[in-house]
Amino acid sequence: MVSINKLVIGGVGLIGGSFALAMRRAGLAKRIVGVGRRPESLAQALELGIIDEAASSWQAALDGADFVLLASPVGQMDAIMAQIAPHLGPNTLVTDAGSTKRDVMEAIYRHLDRQLANVVPAHPIAGAERSGPAAAFATLFDGKKVVITPLPENEPAAVLRVREVWAACGAVIHEMPPQDHDRVFAAVSHLPHLLAFGLVHDLAGRANAEQLFGYAASGFRDFTRIAGSHPEMWRDICMANRQALLAELDQYLAELAYLRALLLSGDSERLEQHFDEARKARNDWADKYLARNIESE
Amino acid sequence: MVSINKLVIGGVGLIGGSFALAMRRAGLAKRIVGVGRRPESLAQALELGIIDEAASSWQAALDGADFVLLASPVGQMDAIMAQIAPHLGPNTLVTDAGSTKRDVMEAIYRHLDRQLANVVPAHPIAGAERSGPAAAFATLFDGKKVVITPLPENEPAAVLRVREVWAACGAVIHEMPPQDHDRVFAAVSHLPHLLAFGLVHDLAGRANAEQLFGYAASGFRDFTRIAGSHPEMWRDICMANRQALLAELDQYLAELAYLRALLLSGDSERLEQHFDEARKARNDWADKYLARNIESE
Repeated sequence: MVSINKLVIGGVGLIGGSFALAMRRAGLAKRIVGVGRRPESLAQALELGIIDEAASSWQAALDGADFVLLASPVGQMDAIMAQIAPHLGPNTLVTDAGSTKRDVMEAIYRHLDRQLANVVPAHPIAGAERSGPAAAFATLFDGKKVVITPLPENEPAAVLRVREVWAACGAVIHEMPPQDHDRVFAAVSHLPHLLAFGLVHDLAGRANAEQLFGYAASGFRDFTRIAGSHPEMWRDICMANRQALLAELDQYLAELAYLRALLLSGDSERLEQHFDEARKARNDWADKYLARNIESE
Repeated sequence: MVSINKLVIGGVGLIGGSFALAMRRAGLAKRIVGVGRRPESLAQALELGIIDEAASSWQAALDGADFVLLASPVGQMDAIMAQIAPHLGPNTLVTDAGSTKRDVMEAIYRHLDRQLANVVPAHPIAGAERSGPAAAFATLFDGKKVVITPLPENEPAAVLRVREVWAACGAVIHEMPPQDHDRVFAAVSHLPHLLAFGLVHDLAGRANAEQLFGYAASGFRDFTRIAGSHPEMWRDICMANRQALLAELDQYLAELAYLRALLLSGDSERLEQHFDEARKARNDWADKYLARNIESE
Protein backbone atom coordinates (compact mmCIF):
# COMPACT_ATOMS: atom_id res chain seq x y z
CA MET A 1 0.00 0.00 0.00
CA VAL A 2 1.22 3.48 -0.92
CA SER A 3 2.38 5.61 2.01
CA ILE A 4 0.95 9.00 2.93
CA ASN A 5 3.61 11.69 2.82
CA LYS A 6 1.65 14.24 4.77
CA LEU A 7 -1.31 13.16 6.87
CA VAL A 8 -3.40 15.95 8.39
CA ILE A 9 -5.62 15.34 11.43
CA GLY A 10 -8.24 17.96 12.23
CA GLY A 11 -9.12 17.50 15.92
CA VAL A 12 -6.48 15.39 17.68
CA GLY A 13 -8.64 13.85 20.40
CA LEU A 14 -9.43 10.22 21.11
CA ILE A 15 -10.49 9.43 17.53
CA GLY A 16 -8.09 11.66 15.62
CA GLY A 17 -5.19 10.72 17.88
CA SER A 18 -5.92 7.00 17.65
CA PHE A 19 -6.11 7.27 13.86
CA ALA A 20 -2.66 8.91 13.85
CA LEU A 21 -1.24 6.19 16.13
CA ALA A 22 -2.83 3.42 14.04
CA MET A 23 -1.33 4.88 10.87
CA ARG A 24 2.06 5.08 12.57
CA ARG A 25 1.70 1.47 13.68
CA ALA A 26 0.94 0.51 10.05
CA GLY A 27 4.04 2.45 8.98
CA LEU A 28 1.96 4.34 6.44
CA ALA A 29 2.28 8.00 7.45
CA LYS A 30 5.60 9.75 6.87
CA ARG A 31 4.58 12.99 8.56
CA ILE A 32 1.52 13.72 10.68
CA VAL A 33 0.29 17.27 11.16
CA GLY A 34 -2.38 18.24 13.66
CA VAL A 35 -4.82 21.15 13.48
CA GLY A 36 -7.42 22.09 16.07
CA ARG A 37 -9.19 24.72 18.08
CA ARG A 38 -7.38 24.01 21.35
CA PRO A 39 -3.64 24.81 21.28
CA GLU A 40 -3.12 22.90 24.55
CA SER A 41 -4.52 19.72 22.97
CA LEU A 42 -2.20 20.08 20.01
CA ALA A 43 0.77 20.70 22.30
CA GLN A 44 -0.11 17.57 24.27
CA ALA A 45 -0.50 15.51 21.08
CA LEU A 46 2.92 16.73 19.96
CA GLU A 47 4.47 15.89 23.32
CA LEU A 48 2.94 12.40 23.26
CA GLY A 49 4.37 11.79 19.80
CA ILE A 50 0.95 11.43 18.23
CA ILE A 51 1.64 14.19 15.70
CA ASP A 52 4.93 15.47 14.30
CA GLU A 53 3.81 19.05 13.95
CA ALA A 54 1.06 21.33 15.19
CA ALA A 55 -0.08 23.58 12.38
CA SER A 56 -1.19 27.09 13.24
CA SER A 57 -3.74 27.25 10.43
CA TRP A 58 -5.60 25.07 7.96
CA GLN A 59 -3.72 26.84 5.18
CA ALA A 60 -0.36 25.74 6.58
CA ALA A 61 -1.64 22.26 7.39
CA LEU A 62 -3.16 21.57 3.98
CA ASP A 63 -0.16 22.74 1.98
CA GLY A 64 1.09 19.56 0.29
CA ALA A 65 -1.28 17.27 2.22
CA ASP A 66 -2.12 13.84 0.75
CA PHE A 67 -4.76 12.77 3.18
CA VAL A 68 -6.96 14.60 5.70
CA LEU A 69 -9.04 13.16 8.54
CA LEU A 70 -11.64 15.49 10.07
CA ALA A 71 -12.25 14.20 13.60
CA SER A 72 -14.03 17.07 15.33
CA PRO A 73 -17.53 16.91 16.86
CA VAL A 74 -20.03 17.07 14.00
CA GLY A 75 -21.30 20.49 15.08
CA GLN A 76 -18.01 21.98 13.88
CA MET A 77 -17.91 20.26 10.50
CA ASP A 78 -19.70 22.98 8.57
CA ALA A 79 -17.28 25.70 9.74
CA ILE A 80 -14.28 23.42 9.13
CA MET A 81 -15.38 22.56 5.59
CA ALA A 82 -15.73 26.30 4.91
CA GLN A 83 -12.21 26.89 6.26
CA ILE A 84 -10.51 24.10 4.35
CA ALA A 85 -12.27 24.71 1.00
CA PRO A 86 -9.90 27.40 -0.33
CA HIS A 87 -6.75 25.47 0.66
CA LEU A 88 -7.57 21.93 -0.42
CA GLY A 89 -5.34 20.71 -3.24
CA PRO A 90 -6.91 18.89 -6.23
CA ASN A 91 -5.36 15.56 -5.20
CA THR A 92 -5.85 15.71 -1.44
CA LEU A 93 -8.16 13.02 -0.13
CA VAL A 94 -10.50 13.86 2.75
CA THR A 95 -12.43 11.60 5.08
CA ASP A 96 -14.10 12.27 8.42
CA ALA A 97 -15.07 10.48 11.60
CA GLY A 98 -18.39 12.18 12.24
CA SER A 99 -21.03 10.16 14.09
CA THR A 100 -23.77 11.46 11.77
CA LYS A 101 -23.51 11.46 8.01
CA ARG A 102 -26.38 13.43 6.44
CA ASP A 103 -25.25 16.71 7.98
CA VAL A 104 -21.62 16.04 7.04
CA MET A 105 -22.71 15.29 3.48
CA GLU A 106 -24.69 18.53 3.38
CA ALA A 107 -21.71 20.52 4.67
CA ILE A 108 -19.56 18.91 1.96
CA TYR A 109 -22.05 19.92 -0.74
CA ARG A 110 -22.23 23.43 0.70
CA HIS A 111 -18.51 24.11 0.85
CA LEU A 112 -16.51 21.51 -1.09
CA ASP A 113 -18.50 21.35 -4.31
CA ARG A 114 -15.31 21.60 -6.36
CA GLN A 115 -13.64 18.71 -4.51
CA LEU A 116 -16.50 16.22 -4.39
CA ALA A 117 -14.50 13.52 -6.17
CA ASN A 118 -12.08 13.25 -3.23
CA VAL A 119 -14.18 13.75 -0.09
CA VAL A 120 -15.40 10.39 1.25
CA PRO A 121 -17.46 10.52 4.48
CA ALA A 122 -17.00 7.79 7.09
CA HIS A 123 -18.00 6.89 10.64
CA PRO A 124 -15.79 4.67 12.79
CA ILE A 125 -17.95 2.83 15.35
CA ALA A 126 -15.37 3.12 18.05
CA GLY A 127 -14.83 5.17 21.15
CA ALA A 128 -14.00 5.01 24.81
CA GLU A 129 -15.02 6.57 28.10
CA ARG A 130 -12.27 9.12 28.04
CA SER A 131 -11.54 11.82 25.49
CA GLY A 132 -8.59 14.00 24.44
CA PRO A 133 -5.20 13.09 22.95
CA ALA A 134 -4.01 11.34 26.13
CA ALA A 135 -6.87 8.84 25.70
CA ALA A 136 -5.77 7.88 22.16
CA PHE A 137 -4.36 4.41 21.46
CA ALA A 138 -3.19 2.65 18.30
CA THR A 139 -5.53 -0.35 18.56
CA LEU A 140 -8.79 1.57 19.00
CA PHE A 141 -10.09 0.61 15.54
CA ASP A 142 -8.90 -3.02 15.51
CA GLY A 143 -11.80 -5.20 14.44
CA LYS A 144 -14.25 -2.29 14.74
CA LYS A 145 -16.67 -1.29 12.00
CA VAL A 146 -16.11 1.81 9.90
CA VAL A 147 -19.19 2.75 7.90
CA ILE A 148 -18.31 4.61 4.71
CA THR A 149 -21.12 6.58 3.10
CA PRO A 150 -19.73 7.48 -0.32
CA LEU A 151 -21.11 10.37 -2.36
CA PRO A 152 -22.30 9.65 -5.91
CA GLU A 153 -19.67 12.18 -7.04
CA ASN A 154 -16.78 10.33 -5.34
CA GLU A 155 -14.05 9.04 -7.62
CA PRO A 156 -14.04 5.21 -7.23
CA ALA A 157 -10.27 5.34 -6.66
CA ALA A 158 -10.81 7.82 -3.81
CA VAL A 159 -13.37 5.54 -2.14
CA LEU A 160 -10.99 2.62 -2.53
CA ARG A 161 -8.12 4.58 -1.00
CA VAL A 162 -10.22 5.73 1.97
CA ARG A 163 -11.37 2.12 2.54
CA GLU A 164 -7.75 0.99 2.36
CA VAL A 165 -6.57 3.60 4.87
CA TRP A 166 -9.30 2.79 7.42
CA ALA A 167 -8.58 -0.92 6.92
CA ALA A 168 -4.89 -0.21 7.59
CA CYS A 169 -6.05 1.22 10.95
CA GLY A 170 -7.47 -2.23 11.71
CA ALA A 171 -11.11 -1.53 10.87
CA VAL A 172 -13.69 -3.68 9.08
CA ILE A 173 -15.24 -1.63 6.30
CA HIS A 174 -18.98 -1.33 5.67
CA GLU A 175 -20.80 0.87 3.14
CA MET A 176 -24.23 2.43 3.45
CA PRO A 177 -26.17 5.43 2.10
CA PRO A 178 -25.95 8.35 4.60
CA GLN A 179 -29.72 8.38 5.22
CA ASP A 180 -29.69 4.70 6.15
CA HIS A 181 -26.66 5.28 8.37
CA ASP A 182 -28.39 8.04 10.29
CA ARG A 183 -31.59 6.06 10.75
CA VAL A 184 -29.75 2.97 11.98
CA PHE A 185 -27.64 4.89 14.49
CA ALA A 186 -30.58 6.99 15.67
CA ALA A 187 -32.15 3.69 16.77
CA VAL A 188 -29.24 1.76 18.25
CA SER A 189 -27.03 4.57 19.53
CA HIS A 190 -28.46 8.10 19.60
CA LEU A 191 -31.79 7.19 21.22
CA PRO A 192 -30.21 5.07 24.00
CA HIS A 193 -27.84 7.96 24.78
CA LEU A 194 -30.76 10.40 24.99
CA LEU A 195 -32.70 7.98 27.23
CA ALA A 196 -29.76 7.44 29.57
CA PHE A 197 -28.98 11.16 29.89
CA GLY A 198 -32.70 11.69 30.54
CA LEU A 199 -33.00 9.10 33.31
CA VAL A 200 -29.97 10.37 35.22
CA HIS A 201 -31.13 13.97 34.86
CA ASP A 202 -34.60 13.02 36.05
CA LEU A 203 -33.30 11.30 39.21
CA ALA A 204 -30.56 13.84 39.94
CA GLY A 205 -33.19 16.57 40.23
CA ARG A 206 -35.16 14.82 42.97
CA ALA A 207 -35.21 15.98 46.59
CA ASN A 208 -34.13 12.43 47.58
CA ALA A 209 -31.51 12.06 44.83
CA GLU A 210 -28.86 11.16 47.39
CA GLN A 211 -30.98 8.28 48.70
CA LEU A 212 -31.89 7.07 45.20
CA PHE A 213 -28.29 7.00 43.99
CA GLY A 214 -27.29 5.27 47.23
CA TYR A 215 -29.39 2.22 46.28
CA ALA A 216 -28.60 2.18 42.55
CA ALA A 217 -26.96 -1.11 41.62
CA SER A 218 -25.37 -2.80 38.61
CA GLY A 219 -28.48 -2.57 36.40
CA PHE A 220 -28.48 1.19 36.86
CA ARG A 221 -24.71 1.34 36.38
CA ASP A 222 -24.82 -0.32 32.97
CA PHE A 223 -28.04 1.33 31.82
CA THR A 224 -26.60 4.78 32.54
CA ARG A 225 -22.97 4.26 31.54
CA ILE A 226 -23.50 6.24 28.32
CA ALA A 227 -24.87 9.18 30.34
CA GLY A 228 -21.19 9.77 31.17
CA SER A 229 -20.56 10.58 27.48
CA HIS A 230 -19.26 13.87 26.15
CA PRO A 231 -22.10 16.47 26.30
CA GLU A 232 -20.93 18.60 23.37
CA MET A 233 -20.36 15.62 21.11
CA TRP A 234 -23.81 14.24 21.91
CA ARG A 235 -25.52 17.59 21.62
CA ASP A 236 -24.04 17.83 18.12
CA ILE A 237 -25.09 14.30 17.20
CA CYS A 238 -28.63 14.78 18.49
CA MET A 239 -28.98 18.11 16.72
CA ALA A 240 -27.44 16.89 13.46
CA ASN A 241 -29.65 13.81 13.41
CA ARG A 242 -32.71 15.20 15.12
CA GLN A 243 -35.11 14.26 12.33
CA ALA A 244 -34.31 10.55 12.59
CA LEU A 245 -33.90 10.79 16.36
CA LEU A 246 -37.34 12.36 16.81
CA ALA A 247 -38.86 9.57 14.71
CA GLU A 248 -37.13 6.99 16.92
CA LEU A 249 -38.11 8.79 20.10
CA ASP A 250 -41.75 8.90 18.99
CA GLN A 251 -41.77 5.21 18.20
CA TYR A 252 -40.25 4.52 21.60
CA LEU A 253 -42.83 6.75 23.31
CA ALA A 254 -45.53 4.64 21.63
CA GLU A 255 -43.82 1.54 23.05
CA LEU A 256 -43.80 3.09 26.53
CA ALA A 257 -47.45 4.11 26.18
CA TYR A 258 -48.26 0.46 25.46
CA LEU A 259 -46.27 -0.75 28.47
CA ARG A 260 -47.95 1.91 30.59
CA ALA A 261 -51.38 0.63 29.50
CA LEU A 262 -50.39 -2.94 30.43
CA LEU A 263 -49.31 -1.76 33.88
CA LEU A 264 -52.44 0.33 34.38
CA SER A 265 -54.79 -2.48 33.38
CA GLY A 266 -52.78 -5.06 35.32
CA ASP A 267 -52.31 -7.21 32.21
CA SER A 268 -49.55 -9.35 33.63
CA GLU A 269 -49.81 -11.97 30.89
CA ARG A 270 -49.07 -9.55 28.05
CA LEU A 271 -46.39 -7.85 30.13
CA GLU A 272 -44.57 -11.13 30.67
CA GLN A 273 -44.91 -11.98 26.98
CA HIS A 274 -43.43 -8.59 26.11
CA PHE A 275 -40.49 -9.09 28.49
CA ASP A 276 -40.01 -12.61 27.20
CA GLU A 277 -39.83 -11.47 23.56
CA ALA A 278 -37.40 -8.71 24.50
CA ARG A 279 -35.20 -11.14 26.42
CA LYS A 280 -35.11 -13.58 23.51
CA ALA A 281 -34.13 -10.80 21.09
CA ARG A 282 -31.47 -9.49 23.51
CA ASN A 283 -30.03 -12.94 24.09
CA ASP A 284 -30.01 -13.79 20.37
CA TRP A 285 -28.15 -10.55 19.70
CA ALA A 286 -25.71 -11.22 22.54
CA ASP A 287 -25.03 -14.76 21.30
CA LYS A 288 -24.40 -13.48 17.78
CA TYR A 289 -22.33 -10.39 18.48
CA LEU A 290 -20.95 -10.32 21.99
CA ALA A 291 -18.66 -13.28 21.41
CA ARG A 292 -16.85 -11.06 18.90
CA ASN A 293 -14.95 -7.87 19.50
CA ILE A 294 -17.94 -5.55 19.84
CA GLU A 295 -17.60 -1.89 18.87
CA SER A 296 -17.32 0.47 21.79
CA GLU A 297 -18.70 3.95 21.25
CA MET B 1 -23.97 -16.57 67.02
CA VAL B 2 -26.58 -19.28 67.65
CA SER B 3 -26.82 -21.93 64.92
CA ILE B 4 -29.96 -22.77 62.97
CA ASN B 5 -30.94 -26.38 63.46
CA LYS B 6 -33.32 -26.52 60.55
CA LEU B 7 -33.15 -23.89 57.83
CA VAL B 8 -35.93 -23.98 55.23
CA ILE B 9 -35.50 -22.38 51.81
CA GLY B 10 -38.61 -21.79 49.73
CA GLY B 11 -37.46 -21.50 46.11
CA VAL B 12 -33.92 -22.85 45.74
CA GLY B 13 -32.80 -20.73 42.77
CA LEU B 14 -29.96 -18.23 42.50
CA ILE B 15 -30.98 -16.30 45.63
CA GLY B 16 -32.29 -19.13 47.79
CA GLY B 17 -29.41 -21.41 46.80
CA SER B 18 -26.78 -18.73 47.45
CA PHE B 19 -28.33 -18.03 50.85
CA ALA B 20 -28.04 -21.73 51.68
CA LEU B 21 -24.42 -21.84 50.53
CA ALA B 22 -23.56 -18.66 52.44
CA MET B 23 -25.09 -20.11 55.62
CA ARG B 24 -23.09 -23.31 55.11
CA ARG B 25 -19.94 -21.23 54.61
CA ALA B 26 -20.71 -19.44 57.89
CA GLY B 27 -21.18 -22.85 59.56
CA LEU B 28 -24.54 -21.70 60.90
CA ALA B 29 -27.04 -24.16 59.41
CA LYS B 30 -27.10 -27.71 60.70
CA ARG B 31 -29.68 -28.96 58.23
CA ILE B 32 -31.04 -27.22 55.13
CA VAL B 33 -34.36 -28.23 53.64
CA GLY B 34 -35.61 -27.01 50.27
CA VAL B 35 -39.21 -26.57 49.12
CA GLY B 36 -40.37 -25.42 45.71
CA ARG B 37 -42.71 -25.79 42.80
CA ARG B 38 -40.18 -27.46 40.47
CA PRO B 39 -39.10 -30.96 41.63
CA GLU B 40 -36.23 -30.93 39.10
CA SER B 41 -34.80 -27.76 40.68
CA LEU B 42 -34.96 -29.31 44.12
CA ALA B 43 -33.32 -32.51 42.84
CA GLN B 44 -30.54 -30.44 41.30
CA ALA B 45 -30.07 -28.43 44.51
CA LEU B 46 -29.83 -31.68 46.42
CA GLU B 47 -27.31 -33.11 43.98
CA LEU B 48 -25.21 -29.94 44.16
CA GLY B 49 -25.15 -30.17 47.95
CA ILE B 50 -26.98 -26.86 48.35
CA ILE B 51 -29.73 -28.49 50.43
CA ASP B 52 -29.67 -31.61 52.57
CA GLU B 53 -33.25 -32.58 51.89
CA ALA B 54 -36.01 -31.80 49.42
CA ALA B 55 -39.31 -31.57 51.26
CA SER B 56 -42.42 -32.76 49.49
CA SER B 57 -44.69 -30.24 51.22
CA TRP B 58 -44.59 -27.09 53.31
CA GLN B 59 -46.04 -29.07 56.18
CA ALA B 60 -43.09 -31.47 56.18
CA ALA B 61 -40.59 -28.68 55.65
CA LEU B 62 -41.85 -26.45 58.42
CA ASP B 63 -42.03 -29.16 61.04
CA GLY B 64 -39.39 -28.15 63.59
CA ALA B 65 -38.01 -25.32 61.42
CA ASP B 66 -36.07 -22.50 63.12
CA PHE B 67 -35.66 -20.19 60.19
CA VAL B 68 -37.39 -19.84 56.82
CA LEU B 69 -36.27 -17.88 53.76
CA LEU B 70 -38.90 -17.29 51.07
CA ALA B 71 -37.00 -16.73 47.84
CA SER B 72 -39.63 -17.15 45.12
CA PRO B 73 -40.66 -14.48 42.59
CA VAL B 74 -42.91 -12.00 44.41
CA GLY B 75 -45.95 -13.02 42.38
CA GLN B 76 -46.00 -16.30 44.31
CA MET B 77 -45.65 -14.83 47.79
CA ASP B 78 -49.35 -14.50 48.51
CA ALA B 79 -50.04 -18.17 47.73
CA ILE B 80 -46.96 -19.27 49.66
CA MET B 81 -47.93 -17.27 52.76
CA ALA B 82 -51.37 -18.89 52.62
CA GLN B 83 -49.74 -22.34 52.38
CA ILE B 84 -47.28 -21.88 55.22
CA ALA B 85 -49.69 -20.15 57.64
CA PRO B 86 -51.21 -23.32 59.17
CA HIS B 87 -47.81 -25.01 59.62
CA LEU B 88 -45.65 -22.23 60.98
CA GLY B 89 -44.51 -22.88 64.56
CA PRO B 90 -44.72 -20.09 67.15
CA ASN B 91 -40.93 -19.70 67.29
CA THR B 92 -40.08 -20.08 63.61
CA LEU B 93 -38.54 -16.94 62.13
CA VAL B 94 -39.40 -16.00 58.54
CA THR B 95 -37.71 -13.61 56.16
CA ASP B 96 -37.99 -13.23 52.39
CA ALA B 97 -35.93 -12.05 49.43
CA GLY B 98 -38.68 -10.35 47.44
CA SER B 99 -37.69 -7.43 45.23
CA THR B 100 -40.79 -5.48 46.28
CA LYS B 101 -41.90 -5.01 49.86
CA ARG B 102 -45.37 -3.45 50.03
CA ASP B 103 -47.01 -6.44 48.37
CA VAL B 104 -45.07 -8.89 50.55
CA MET B 105 -46.11 -6.93 53.62
CA GLU B 106 -49.74 -7.06 52.50
CA ALA B 107 -49.53 -10.80 51.93
CA ILE B 108 -48.09 -11.20 55.43
CA TYR B 109 -50.97 -9.22 56.93
CA ARG B 110 -53.47 -11.25 54.92
CA HIS B 111 -52.20 -14.70 55.87
CA LEU B 112 -49.77 -14.56 58.79
CA ASP B 113 -51.62 -12.27 61.17
CA ARG B 114 -50.97 -14.67 64.06
CA GLN B 115 -47.21 -14.78 63.39
CA LEU B 116 -46.49 -11.09 62.80
CA ALA B 117 -43.91 -10.94 65.58
CA ASN B 118 -41.59 -13.30 63.69
CA VAL B 119 -41.98 -12.42 59.99
CA VAL B 120 -39.37 -9.83 58.97
CA PRO B 121 -39.41 -8.80 55.26
CA ALA B 122 -36.11 -8.18 53.49
CA HIS B 123 -34.69 -7.51 50.03
CA PRO B 124 -31.13 -8.51 49.16
CA ILE B 125 -29.81 -6.19 46.41
CA ALA B 126 -27.96 -8.95 44.68
CA GLY B 127 -28.35 -11.07 41.61
CA ALA B 128 -26.64 -12.31 38.51
CA GLU B 129 -27.33 -12.92 34.85
CA ARG B 130 -28.14 -16.59 35.36
CA SER B 131 -30.84 -18.17 37.47
CA GLY B 132 -31.58 -21.56 39.01
CA PRO B 133 -29.71 -23.59 41.66
CA ALA B 134 -26.67 -24.19 39.42
CA ALA B 135 -26.12 -20.42 39.34
CA ALA B 136 -25.98 -20.15 43.15
CA PHE B 137 -22.70 -19.29 44.89
CA ALA B 138 -21.73 -18.72 48.51
CA THR B 139 -20.28 -15.20 48.04
CA LEU B 140 -23.26 -13.67 46.23
CA PHE B 141 -24.21 -11.45 49.18
CA ASP B 142 -20.70 -10.45 50.26
CA GLY B 143 -20.62 -6.69 50.68
CA LYS B 144 -24.07 -6.34 49.10
CA LYS B 145 -26.92 -4.39 50.67
CA VAL B 146 -29.86 -6.15 52.23
CA VAL B 147 -32.76 -3.80 52.92
CA ILE B 148 -34.88 -4.94 55.84
CA THR B 149 -38.36 -3.42 56.08
CA PRO B 150 -39.55 -4.43 59.55
CA LEU B 151 -43.22 -4.48 60.47
CA PRO B 152 -44.35 -2.48 63.52
CA GLU B 153 -45.55 -5.80 64.94
CA ASN B 154 -42.12 -7.48 64.66
CA GLU B 155 -40.51 -8.58 67.88
CA PRO B 156 -37.24 -6.59 68.22
CA ALA B 157 -35.37 -9.84 68.89
CA ALA B 158 -36.71 -11.28 65.61
CA VAL B 159 -35.53 -8.23 63.64
CA LEU B 160 -32.13 -8.53 65.29
CA ARG B 161 -31.89 -12.21 64.47
CA VAL B 162 -32.86 -11.66 60.82
CA ARG B 163 -30.26 -8.87 60.55
CA GLU B 164 -27.69 -11.18 62.11
CA VAL B 165 -28.46 -14.03 59.68
CA TRP B 166 -28.25 -11.81 56.59
CA ALA B 167 -25.05 -10.28 57.95
CA ALA B 168 -23.66 -13.81 58.38
CA CYS B 169 -24.28 -14.26 54.64
CA GLY B 170 -21.88 -11.35 54.10
CA ALA B 171 -24.46 -8.60 53.57
CA VAL B 172 -24.50 -5.00 54.77
CA ILE B 173 -27.82 -4.35 56.49
CA HIS B 174 -30.04 -1.33 55.81
CA GLU B 175 -33.51 -0.58 57.17
CA MET B 176 -36.31 1.32 55.48
CA PRO B 177 -40.13 1.51 55.54
CA PRO B 178 -41.61 -0.71 52.78
CA GLN B 179 -43.22 2.25 50.98
CA ASP B 180 -39.88 4.06 50.77
CA HIS B 181 -38.21 0.86 49.61
CA ASP B 182 -40.66 0.42 46.76
CA ARG B 183 -40.41 4.05 45.64
CA VAL B 184 -36.61 3.99 45.66
CA PHE B 185 -36.36 0.76 43.67
CA ALA B 186 -39.09 1.80 41.24
CA ALA B 187 -36.78 4.68 40.30
CA VAL B 188 -33.34 3.10 40.22
CA SER B 189 -34.18 -0.48 39.25
CA HIS B 190 -37.73 -1.24 38.08
CA LEU B 191 -38.03 1.68 35.66
CA PRO B 192 -34.64 1.03 33.98
CA HIS B 193 -35.64 -2.62 33.49
CA LEU B 194 -38.95 -1.59 31.90
CA LEU B 195 -37.15 0.91 29.64
CA ALA B 196 -34.56 -1.63 28.51
CA PHE B 197 -37.14 -4.35 27.80
CA GLY B 198 -39.12 -1.71 25.88
CA LEU B 199 -36.23 -0.57 23.70
CA VAL B 200 -35.22 -4.07 22.69
CA HIS B 201 -38.82 -5.03 21.98
CA ASP B 202 -39.31 -1.88 19.92
CA LEU B 203 -36.25 -2.57 17.73
CA ALA B 204 -36.80 -6.34 17.47
CA GLY B 205 -40.18 -5.72 15.86
CA ARG B 206 -38.80 -3.63 12.99
CA ALA B 207 -38.58 -4.88 9.42
CA ASN B 208 -34.85 -4.01 9.48
CA ALA B 209 -34.22 -5.47 12.95
CA GLU B 210 -31.37 -7.60 11.60
CA GLN B 211 -29.60 -4.53 10.22
CA LEU B 212 -30.19 -2.50 13.40
CA PHE B 213 -28.82 -5.18 15.70
CA GLY B 214 -25.88 -5.63 13.35
CA TYR B 215 -24.68 -2.10 14.08
CA ALA B 216 -25.49 -2.05 17.80
CA ALA B 217 -22.31 -1.42 19.80
CA SER B 218 -21.16 -1.27 23.40
CA GLY B 219 -23.53 1.55 24.40
CA PHE B 220 -26.47 -0.58 23.30
CA ARG B 221 -24.96 -3.66 24.93
CA ASP B 222 -24.76 -2.06 28.35
CA PHE B 223 -28.01 -0.11 28.09
CA THR B 224 -29.92 -3.30 27.26
CA ARG B 225 -28.10 -5.81 29.48
CA ILE B 226 -31.01 -5.86 31.93
CA ALA B 227 -33.41 -6.72 29.08
CA GLY B 228 -31.89 -10.20 29.40
CA SER B 229 -33.44 -10.50 32.89
CA HIS B 230 -35.97 -13.11 33.95
CA PRO B 231 -39.39 -12.24 32.42
CA GLU B 232 -41.54 -13.82 35.15
CA MET B 233 -39.57 -12.25 37.96
CA TRP B 234 -39.79 -8.82 36.34
CA ARG B 235 -43.45 -9.19 35.45
CA ASP B 236 -44.08 -9.90 39.14
CA ILE B 237 -41.98 -6.94 40.28
CA CYS B 238 -43.63 -4.55 37.83
CA MET B 239 -47.09 -5.74 38.78
CA ALA B 240 -46.42 -5.75 42.52
CA ASN B 241 -44.98 -2.25 42.40
CA ARG B 242 -47.01 -0.82 39.59
CA GLN B 243 -48.28 2.17 41.56
CA ALA B 244 -44.77 3.47 42.24
CA LEU B 245 -43.55 2.33 38.82
CA LEU B 246 -46.32 4.21 37.02
CA ALA B 247 -45.44 7.35 38.97
CA GLU B 248 -41.79 6.93 37.95
CA LEU B 249 -42.70 6.19 34.35
CA ASP B 250 -44.87 9.30 34.18
CA GLN B 251 -42.12 11.48 35.56
CA TYR B 252 -39.73 9.98 33.02
CA LEU B 253 -42.22 10.57 30.21
CA ALA B 254 -42.32 14.24 31.26
CA GLU B 255 -38.52 14.28 31.05
CA LEU B 256 -38.64 12.77 27.55
CA ALA B 257 -41.31 15.29 26.51
CA TYR B 258 -38.95 18.07 27.56
CA LEU B 259 -36.03 16.55 25.65
CA ARG B 260 -38.31 16.10 22.65
CA ALA B 261 -39.25 19.79 22.78
CA LEU B 262 -35.55 20.76 22.89
CA LEU B 263 -34.88 18.61 19.82
CA LEU B 264 -37.91 19.94 17.96
CA SER B 265 -37.06 23.58 18.63
CA GLY B 266 -33.36 22.97 17.96
CA ASP B 267 -32.41 24.33 21.38
CA SER B 268 -28.88 22.99 21.35
CA GLU B 269 -27.74 25.13 24.28
CA ARG B 270 -30.30 23.73 26.72
CA LEU B 271 -29.75 20.23 25.35
CA GLU B 272 -26.03 20.42 26.03
CA GLN B 273 -26.68 21.84 29.50
CA HIS B 274 -29.04 18.94 30.18
CA PHE B 275 -26.47 16.36 29.02
CA ASP B 276 -23.78 18.12 31.00
CA GLU B 277 -25.81 18.02 34.24
CA ALA B 278 -26.61 14.35 33.66
CA ARG B 279 -22.96 13.52 33.02
CA LYS B 280 -21.87 15.31 36.20
CA ALA B 281 -24.46 13.43 38.27
CA ARG B 282 -23.50 10.10 36.66
CA ASN B 283 -19.79 10.70 37.21
CA ASP B 284 -20.30 11.83 40.82
CA TRP B 285 -22.29 8.66 41.46
CA ALA B 286 -19.67 6.51 39.74
CA ASP B 287 -16.85 8.11 41.76
CA LYS B 288 -18.73 7.56 44.98
CA TYR B 289 -20.07 4.03 44.46
CA LEU B 290 -18.31 2.22 41.64
CA ALA B 291 -15.00 2.08 43.46
CA ARG B 292 -16.76 -0.15 45.98
CA ASN B 293 -18.28 -3.56 45.48
CA ILE B 294 -21.48 -2.45 43.76
CA GLU B 295 -24.63 -4.54 44.09
CA SER B 296 -25.48 -6.58 41.04
CA GLU B 297 -29.16 -7.28 40.47
